[in-house]
Amino acid sequence: MRLPLLTNRSDTLWYKEGRVFLLDRRLYPKETVYRDYGSYQEVAQAIIDMVVQGAPPLAYTAGYGLALAAREAQRRFENIEKQKEYVKEAYEVLLNTRPTGADLYQVLSRALDTALKSLSQGEDAEKILVSQIDAEVQRGDYAARVSGYYAATLMGEEETILTHCFPGAALNYVLYYATKMGKEISVYANETRPYFQGLRLTAASVSELGLPVTVVTDGMAGYLFKEGKITKYITAADSVLMNGSIVNKIGTYQYAIVAKYHEIPYIVLGYDGPDVEKEVDSDIKIEKRDPEEILSFKGERLVGSEIKAYYPAFDLTPGSLVSAICTDRGIFSPLDIKRYLLTKDHDPVPLEL
Amino acid sequence: MRLPLLTNRSDTLWYKEGRVFLLDRRLYPKETVYRDYGSYQEVAQAIIDMVVQGAPPLAYTAGYGLALAAREAQRRFENIEKQKEYVKEAYEVLLNTRPTGADLYQVLSRALDTALKSLSQGEDAEKILVSQIDAEVQRGDYAARVSGYYAATLMGEEETILTHCFPGAALNYVLYYATKMGKEISVYANETRPYFQGLRLTAASVSELGLPVTVVTDGMAGYLFKEGKITKYITAADSVLMNGSIVNKIGTYQYAIVAKYHEIPYIVLGYDGPDVEKEVDSDIKIEKRDPEEILSFKGERLVGSEIKAYYPAFDLTPGSLVSAICTDRGIFSPLDIKRYLLTKDHDPVPLEL
Repeated sequence: MRLPLLTNRSDTLWYKEGRVFLLDRRLYPKETVYRDYGSYQEVAQAIIDMVVQGAPPLAYTAGYGLALAAREAQRRFENIEKQKEYVKEAYEVLLNTRPTGADLYQVLSRALDTALKSLSQGEDAEKILVSQIDAEVQRGDYAARVSGYYAATLMGEEETILTHCFPGAALNYVLYYATKMGKEISVYANETRPYFQGLRLTAASVSELGLPVTVVTDGMAGYLFKEGKITKYITAADSVLMNGSIVNKIGTYQYAIVAKYHEIPYIVLGYDGPDVEKEVDSDIKIEKRDPEEILSFKGERLVGSEIKAYYPAFDLTPGSLVSAICTDRGIFSPLDIKRYLLTKDHDPVPLEL
Repeated sequence: MRLPLLTNRSDTLWYKEGRVFLLDRRLYPKETVYRDYGSYQEVAQAIIDMVVQGAPPLAYTAGYGLALAAREAQRRFENIEKQKEYVKEAYEVLLNTRPTGADLYQVLSRALDTALKSLSQGEDAEKILVSQIDAEVQRGDYAARVSGYYAATLMGEEETILTHCFPGAALNYVLYYATKMGKEISVYANETRPYFQGLRLTAASVSELGLPVTVVTDGMAGYLFKEGKITKYITAADSVLMNGSIVNKIGTYQYAIVAKYHEIPYIVLGYDGPDVEKEVDSDIKIEKRDPEEILSFKGERLVGSEIKAYYPAFDLTPGSLVSAICTDRGIFSPLDIKRYLLTKDHDPVPLEL
């Protein structure tokens, strides 16, 4: 059983010789195109333009972007304060690309601390930053694997999963481990307008694993639940709040309501746990994206300019609708997610069980 | 205040000199293109291909299609039995274009009765059928107007309506009459994949009325409800069952659940009332359309051929999620919809109140 391309992050995003390389997730799987960028401004634009998506991958990309900025700062300025100023500016630009997810702030803040210290000490800041982000990518891959493993332990002998957007590497591991455990799993993927991450990334990944996957539009979940086709609802989280709320792709919330109405469990792939700086829902800023992304397709407007749209990119689901949050430190009730912080890392889970 | 183009059905579909004329609703409002058809087979294909949509309009179109068949039958055959055979075949083809909605069967069955009688008596069956369908179009326009009027009486001083798909002429009348009554109404329209009837037909119609309309993707309704943006959920019905269930565009059901969860009323535009032949949910056959319509856009496949999709075109919403059904004979509880059959027609509602 082969793990899909969108599993190990170092296969789709990396730093090499002053350039950041990214798989273009807007085109995958129809086209497998890698793009590369030589400045932090280009990296920021690529994040805004959704060349990369998913809270951890875009955060790592921004981290590599800061390495580009440190490199440029040390080449452009002798003065250490000017170097630091340049890197701080880059930090702000990279941080403001996508305001909602937890990882971007966390990865970038740690990277900024490292960058400022390295610059102060006249070290090779680029090199130190790239090593740091490489290590974060490794740690992120580990979190995806272990949280996916835990979710797999919650699967029964036969399950049909509904998912929304692309839950990332952790979903691949849920399916991988559940299959290794002898369970029969199939997937319904919401297409996830307007970027079709479900139609493209989720469907491709499940398909690469050799499991059955069926795409539906974002209006069909209720029908599937009513027909008894769905046994588990599973998504990732762009952020898990300390109050147990889940931030994820717009739509996640309404399907959680519909799952609850049909008494179907909602399992969240929580990767490396809650965001300790986000206590309550009002701590989250929901990104509003350009409505043109709804009103146009491949650059062509679907309707005249008199028609307006609204595009919040994420929503908040209260913990009361969530059955379990699976993390790299085990499975938590949303009511009890703070206990994650008191829990030790799990021993590594081997690929072969 | 001008009523939108998609209000009086005779503006967008009619019969003239052996041809059926249709506004192409797949292109409207970006392009206003009328197509015409000279055989019942072409009319059937146009219905399948969604040149016309909405339960009443497509039913009238099929009725005119049967007039084409009657004309052809009398031209082609001397023998009355052969004429009747031909028309019966046409009836089956036209009936099987879209299996779910109530109007198609009702309009076509009445038309077939008339056709067989006219043919037996050697009358001009085409002419008689066209007159009959013209009258049904008039009666349908009246039902749309009066049911819209009743729904308008349920609106408060300020309302923000969420709607799914295009509820047809009745929605235009809700907005028209509510505005005449001095109420302030704005609309959020689900884009309604894969045909974008909300993005195109609903947004255009509300916009033609001069009222504010905002398009959202089919994943955003939950967020809008949670933010307190929606005060009423309103849809049409392709069929109202005698048990109070509603058949409508796929997605209608899940938004009804989400509306209920947020304690927002769901109002159904029930036009000319329940389908007396449909007692319970299992009497309804949900049309399954070609998944290619989800997986492709303007003829181009969005993903490779290894990805499959599923496309039920309608869903059933139980009466327990419905607050009121507005018809041409007044407003009914879903529990009490059978009383429609015992109720007299309302006096005509004038355009100027």
